[in-house]
Amino acid sequence: MTNFATLPQPPYFAVIFSSFRTPGADNDGHGASDGYGDMADRMVELAAQQDGYLGIESARGADGFGITVSYWRDEAAIVKWKANAEHLVAQQYGQERWYEHFELRIAKVERAYGKP
Amino acid sequence: MTNFATLPQPPYFAVIFSSFRTPGADNDGHGASDGYGDMADRMVELAAQQDGYLGIESARGADGFGITVSYWRDEAAIVKWKANAEHLVAQQYGQERWYEHFELRIAKVERAYGKP
Repeated sequence: MTNFATLPQPPYFAVIFSSFRTPGADNDGHGASDGYGDMADRMVELAAQQDGYLGIESARGADGFGITVSYWRDEAAIVKWKANAEHLVAQQYGQERWYEHFELRIAKVERAYGKP
Repeated sequence: MTNFATLPQPPYFAVIFSSFRTPGADNDGHGASDGYGDMADRMVELAAQQDGYLGIESARGADGFGITVSYWRDEAAIVKWKANAEHLVAQQYGQERWYEHFELRIAKVERAYGKP
C-alpha cells in the first residue's frame, strides 16, 4: 500500500490542493485525451526530486472532485517548487484546461497521529 | 457544485484525514453493510453543527483510499469536536472496523488561493 506518505514528526508543511476536473475529462487521470494523466504523473515524479519534498497523497472520486496533499519540509521548499519551470507549464495548463475550479491552501502541520 | 468548502481568509485550521477502507467495504460510502456510509453522512452533518466549523471537502477513489479535510476556526474547536460524544463512537468504529489504515494531521492554514 503506497497511498500513504511516510512523514517525519511535525512540524512540516502541507499544500492542500482541491480540484474539480473539467467536464468530459478522464477523471482517473490516465489516458485522458487532454494530456492531464501524463502531466499529473510527471508532476508527482518531479515533485519527489525537489529539495524539501516529504511525500504526497491523492484521491479523486468518480465525480471528478479530487484532493491532493503534498508535504514539504518548509515554506521555502514550497515556494521553490511553485517556481519550478516545468511545474509552471503544468500550472498554466491546469488553469487553462484541466481544472474548472481549484483551491490551494498552504498549511503548517503541527500535530499528527494514525493507525496502525 | 458543492464539493468545495467556502472558507474565510486565513488563518484557520485544517484536519487532514487520509484513510484506507477495509477490504470488501463499500468504498463510495453509501449503502455499505458495515454501517460506514450512514455514519459518515451523520458525522458530516454533526460536524457542521459544531461551533467553529468552517467547512469540509472529501474525495475517495475506487481503490478505497480517501482524503477528507475539515476546516475549523481554531484548535479549540478541533479539540472539542474530537471529544464530541457521538463522534467518539464513530472514531471507535473507525479504529475497529472501517479503516485498515488512517493518518490524521492537524495544520494551520496560512495562505490560500484558487480559481475562479
